[in-house]
Amino acid sequence: MATQPTREDRFSFGLWTVGWRAQDPFGDATRPVLDPAEAVHKLSELGAWGITLHDDDLIPFGTEGGERDKRISLFREAIDQTGLTVPMVTTNLFTHPVFKDGGFTSNDRGVRRYALRKVLRNLDLAAEFGAKTFVMWGGREGSETDAAKDVRFALDRYREAIDTVAQYSEDKGYGIRFALEPKPNEPRGDILLPTIGHALAFISTLEHHELVGVNPEVGHEQMAGLNFVHGISQALWQKKLFHIDLNGQHGTRFDQDLIFGHGDLLSAFFLVDLLENGGYDGPRHFDYKPLRTEDGAGVWSSAAANMSTYLLLKERAAAYRADPEVQEALLAAKVAELGESTLAAGETTEAFLADKSAFEDYDVDAAGSQGYGFVHLSQLALEHVLGAR
Amino acid sequence: MATQPTREDRFSFGLWTVGWRAQDPFGDATRPVLDPAEAVHKLSELGAWGITLHDDDLIPFGTEGGERDKRISLFREAIDQTGLTVPMVTTNLFTHPVFKDGGFTSNDRGVRRYALRKVLRNLDLAAEFGAKTFVMWGGREGSETDAAKDVRFALDRYREAIDTVAQYSEDKGYGIRFALEPKPNEPRGDILLPTIGHALAFISTLEHHELVGVNPEVGHEQMAGLNFVHGISQALWQKKLFHIDLNGQHGTRFDQDLIFGHGDLLSAFFLVDLLENGGYDGPRHFDYKPLRTEDGAGVWSSAAANMSTYLLLKERAAAYRADPEVQEALLAAKVAELGESTLAAGETTEAFLADKSAFEDYDVDAAGSQGYGFVHLSQLALEHVLGAR
Amino acid sequence: MATQPTREDRFSFGLWTVGWRAQDPFGDATRPVLDPAEAVHKLSELGAWGITLHDDDLIPFGTEGGERDKRISLFREAIDQTGLTVPMVTTNLFTHPVFKDGGFTSNDRGVRRYALRKVLRNLDLAAEFGAKTFVMWGGREGSETDAAKDVRFALDRYREAIDTVAQYSEDKGYGIRFALEPKPNEPRGDILLPTIGHALAFISTLEHHELVGVNPEVGHEQMAGLNFVHGISQALWQKKLFHIDLNGQHGTRFDQDLIFGHGDLLSAFFLVDLLENGGYDGPRHFDYKPLRTEDGAGVWSSAAANMSTYLLLKERAAAYRADPEVQEALLAAKVAELGESTLAAGETTEAFLADKSAFEDYDVDAAGSQGYGFVHLSQLALEHVLGAR
Amino acid sequence: MATQPTREDRFSFGLWTVGWRAQDPFGDATRPVLDPAEAVHKLSELGAWGITLHDDDLIPFGTEGGERDKRISLFREAIDQTGLTVPMVTTNLFTHPVFKDGGFTSNDRGVRRYALRKVLRNLDLAAEFGAKTFVMWGGREGSETDAAKDVRFALDRYREAIDTVAQYSEDKGYGIRFALEPKPNEPRGDILLPTIGHALAFISTLEHHELVGVNPEVGHEQMAGLNFVHGISQALWQKKLFHIDLNGQHGTRFDQDLIFGHGDLLSAFFLVDLLENGGYDGPRHFDYKPLRTEDGAGVWSSAAANMSTYLLLKERAAAYRADPEVQEALLAAKVAELGESTLAAGETTEAFLADKSAFEDYDVDAAGSQGYGFVHLSQLALEHVLGAR
Repeated sequence: MATQPTREDRFSFGLWTVGWRAQDPFGDATRPVLDPAEAVHKLSELGAWGITLHDDDLIPFGTEGGERDKRISLFREAIDQTGLTVPMVTTNLFTHPVFKDGGFTSNDRGVRRYALRKVLRNLDLAAEFGAKTFVMWGGREGSETDAAKDVRFALDRYREAIDTVAQYSEDKGYGIRFALEPKPNEPRGDILLPTIGHALAFISTLEHHELVGVNPEVGHEQMAGLNFVHGISQALWQKKLFHIDLNGQHGTRFDQDLIFGHGDLLSAFFLVDLLENGGYDGPRHFDYKPLRTEDGAGVWSSAAANMSTYLLLKERAAAYRADPEVQEALLAAKVAELGESTLAAGETTEAFLADKSAFEDYDVDAAGSQGYGFVHLSQLALEHVLGAR
Repeated sequence: MATQPTREDRFSFGLWTVGWRAQDPFGDATRPVLDPAEAVHKLSELGAWGITLHDDDLIPFGTEGGERDKRISLFREAIDQTGLTVPMVTTNLFTHPVFKDGGFTSNDRGVRRYALRKVLRNLDLAAEFGAKTFVMWGGREGSETDAAKDVRFALDRYREAIDTVAQYSEDKGYGIRFALEPKPNEPRGDILLPTIGHALAFISTLEHHELVGVNPEVGHEQMAGLNFVHGISQALWQKKLFHIDLNGQHGTRFDQDLIFGHGDLLSAFFLVDLLENGGYDGPRHFDYKPLRTEDGAGVWSSAAANMSTYLLLKERAAAYRADPEVQEALLAAKVAELGESTLAAGETTEAFLADKSAFEDYDVDAAGSQGYGFVHLSQLALEHVLGAR
Repeated sequence: MATQPTREDRFSFGLWTVGWRAQDPFGDATRPVLDPAEAVHKLSELGAWGITLHDDDLIPFGTEGGERDKRISLFREAIDQTGLTVPMVTTNLFTHPVFKDGGFTSNDRGVRRYALRKVLRNLDLAAEFGAKTFVMWGGREGSETDAAKDVRFALDRYREAIDTVAQYSEDKGYGIRFALEPKPNEPRGDILLPTIGHALAFISTLEHHELVGVNPEVGHEQMAGLNFVHGISQALWQKKLFHIDLNGQHGTRFDQDLIFGHGDLLSAFFLVDLLENGGYDGPRHFDYKPLRTEDGAGVWSSAAANMSTYLLLKERAAAYRADPEVQEALLAAKVAELGESTLAAGETTEAFLADKSAFEDYDVDAAGSQGYGFVHLSQLALEHVLGAR
Repeated sequence: MATQPTREDRFSFGLWTVGWRAQDPFGDATRPVLDPAEAVHKLSELGAWGITLHDDDLIPFGTEGGERDKRISLFREAIDQTGLTVPMVTTNLFTHPVFKDGGFTSNDRGVRRYALRKVLRNLDLAAEFGAKTFVMWGGREGSETDAAKDVRFALDRYREAIDTVAQYSEDKGYGIRFALEPKPNEPRGDILLPTIGHALAFISTLEHHELVGVNPEVGHEQMAGLNFVHGISQALWQKKLFHIDLNGQHGTRFDQDLIFGHGDLLSAFFLVDLLENGGYDGPRHFDYKPLRTEDGAGVWSSAAANMSTYLLLKERAAAYRADPEVQEALLAAKVAELGESTLAAGETTEAFLADKSAFEDYDVDAAGSQGYGFVHLSQLALEHVLGAR
């Protein structure tokens, strides 16, 4: 089958994904600790290209000195042995109680300073690993009650922190880009920068806005009932899709982190089509959780499933695009016509206002009764997804 | 009671709100057509300050020439008689079948040109009425299937349209500002610029970005499960809250357009507190629908209810802020401390990295075990809402 | 292709589906009135087996006497010519303003009596058409505010109405079964009997409970974020799946009535698998809306798409079940083991309490660390859906 | 203030609520272990009447023999000292990995037997503590993929388990009633018996259905976007409201377990009104989580806040009902008229069909244009909630 991944596919996994011990809000861990080096070797065997991590995934919080160095060096050894890359690093500002009211935007200034230091230190590690992207998920930046958080102050601090980190990276010459990861809620009642849109808007206010983009996650947008393909399209359109987290989700509920495709399959198909054809050249990064019911074998079969599903959808997207009936349907649906500017090249507003065919003589009833053929087109897509064409 | 509104409260209503005939997807209209002049007089009597409208609310689609002029002049007469203002005008690009695939972003270029002309013409009317804000709700800009809409093209066209309109306004010297109104879905399966965030992000890409802000609606953000107070805070923070639509909603479902406060009452309280104390000086605009079960009397009692509720919440917000116990709780919760910059004034990154108290010697366990007192604070707020303090 | 439907597939469509004129809460109709006889002929040509209707779909509200008879007879003629069946009839208690606070549960007793009479009359028509199922969707039975509806009274009246109708049917010897259709909201803020569960619970209290089952709709359960396959399973388990409405939906938002499969495709696959193998022998009824962007051709291509998708998924479900690797995975996942009773046949509680292997000596850690292989199984299902195995 | 609770208010708390250590899916515990005896004393001081528990709250999983007895006896001592009651006991079938695929409905029969034994043993403890209600929340009974769980088998096993437990209780003469607690999802992707309705429907199939009712939780129904007051009304109407879990939630997202009233405040008001006036005489049980940001002081202030809010809303409900303007509005809205049967006493269907005033001569237009005055009524309620009348 064509679904055997290769390094060229640029699939990467978070160390915390295959390493998730399956502790949840109502249950204890069901799996033992996974040795990071084993994760590297296993992922490499399965055909992955990269592995990503939070500082605390590799170096448990509070581990210092020789023990810290040893853990880093064992990991690097595994990386070197396998040829895997570390394309992205991120910082854990959410597990330890100190971050219970946030990191960059905790009401407590001491916490904010501590968080900022932890991030700066981790940026050094990211550079050491050769990471090109530094993700920031502000899962604890938020509130449960509007009484307790002045969001305008919080955004001031968020900006201060990110500009400080970006400046540091520039000063050091790390050449790293930053990617903010939006999420609407969980673990906080409401999280700041809840969607791709809010993050992009925030980024536009940064001093170092050119260094900062987004790392959207399928499930995070779907937790707000939003169309992920639309969101990714806007991020691409604003040239801000710096990284992506692929997984699955069943709508507006807790964060499920299912295998890619195991949530909204049609959306996954259109997403793959967009990523493959829309100019995204970053990693295909899986941020999922192997189900809590699985043992070690299930962990690795779930990792493989993410990649297989992506590759199968990629095949179907290619077949969809190549199908002459689809091309005809796209034409009938005027999908490319939306690429034409509404005003003619060089048309002035005056000329436009004088064009009676555009308004006074326009046959609105004829235009209103035309059929766009969207149903036919979407059924063709569905049948390609089903492998039925 | 203190809940009698005055002009100083700057309450405004959409003509389409009190004029809604209560036709819904499963039912016919239950109320007769409301004469726009009667709406003006009634709202004025109730204490409103402004009335807003879509072109088609006043001048049914397709009405031209003398009949058009007559309708405009009768409306103006009522305005003049009552002293009401027309602070905002907006364009209907959603009712007529011609817009079934959108206005500015229809796949059909002819439709796009028609839509743009309709908007430009309506901008002239807005200027004639002295409106300061021109709202654009792109309710039909979107799709039901990802196969049929290239969102990147759509955003190109959206930008083209808004920049054209803004340029026209500048050329004419209208001094009007534009406010985009986000909504996640309904009537389209997925609407472009689905949240405050997406709209703000889009605005940052406009040529005339300084003229364009947002007109968020309570229910629209809540349809995506988002915290409206957070969204408004970000809009204020980005200096883009140009207008606001107040109403009520019960979460992620169809657009209910309930009376303000008749959805999430605690959120309404914190919203009023923010609007009154956060530097917003625009209209308090109600975009709601009188329940379909109501007759004419119910329409006007519902209009009054919006204003009463706002004023009652304003009173409670003032009492909340003045309460010494609240002030103490705010201090304990370090709400204002978030206003302090994380780095000291003039502190360099180098100095910061050298500050051992910030990281190496920081007592994370002490910081992690402190109590923020958020529960106490939010309970004080709740008791103020209940009028119990 | 194997996706050409035949009468044996028992596909039926609501007259109101292909006849939907595409008026929505924000827009006017985009399509002309469809002649009911034409609908019959077209659906027959496409391979459908049945057509269903509300009284008002065929006989506009208020049409009486000769005009009423003529419309009925023209429809019957088309039925006779084509050999289509009318397996189900339902009553419109939602469009006319008289039902704005409900039919069976309006606060106004006169309205309740009128609604009940309209239903009884329509039951006669259902019998005349040979319908076996009479659906009741109480879309207006509900409220927007808890202040205005005593739900306990409402359930009393609901029960009274359904028992009255069922008794009438029995007295007349119609042999008709009744199917309640749950929906959580829209058009009412909250609708009574919002889910399959609430309807089943209500039915258990009826005098004629044996005559009454449910008619669940894919989208209606998904509007509450519920798993439709789980709901159908419970309905089947309680022997109450009397009818089904197939369509598509994107989660917790307005009622989209998409083509079957055009929402959650994986769920559609498991649903078809359950219907085909779970003992359901009723019609496969599509209750969907052709997109508002479509013209007449799009209407019929959308009707065909519903049937094709169902048949394609049926093929994939059969292949899934026949696949030896799937059978092995089902065994490993102990799916059939759940069919074994927990107590042994004849095992008394005393004997069970005395079985130390069940508790005192049970190795919880071994049991807790076993892998269930659910991921492998679900990936096999997904690959069958994709036609990749 | 009138908000000091007394034993007569019958407020109870789960030991796991005030004892929650604030570990969440993304963070470690922020609070130390709470001694159960301290919880008893503190709750007693605050004015609570009862304390409830899971077996494992008091006796950590796996604790046996003398240590088990000691823990029970220390708890009983505290109970005796304070006079608190233990009105309800429930069993933890969700924390230990052994339950990762469910307890009563695990695919693994050995797990099912173990779970059933754990419950039977805990029922003995419940009886020992004099509990009147035994709650069953099947949080792990469910699935993440439809491939892996035959829900019909699962419901067979669920029924078997509950009937076995109920029979055991009867055999022992415990006089205990059982209350099933529905929840739509979390921790499982989809949980069986997801809503009040599904649980009531399931109960109707039980051999010992008379012994089994529901224990609905505010947030659990709101996670499905359902109206909690409607759900409680149906449970009361079916005489199945055996217990209730009061808390707060912000719609369709993860389970927040906020303080009662800190989610949808208007719904909380109507709920208190219904509980106080609708014939419910069970405990007012709080199942909430003190925010993770709080320390010990915050835990106790949050416990007190639940009770204060309930009492304040109870006061407001009483004032609402006593207000002559409300009574007039209720009359105008015909709320009590829904209590009248639709058919007259003794009216036969024949007589009803012969009543032309009910149908042929009924003025649908007049009935359709009447105003129900629901807006006025709901605004009066809102103003009572605000303490403004």
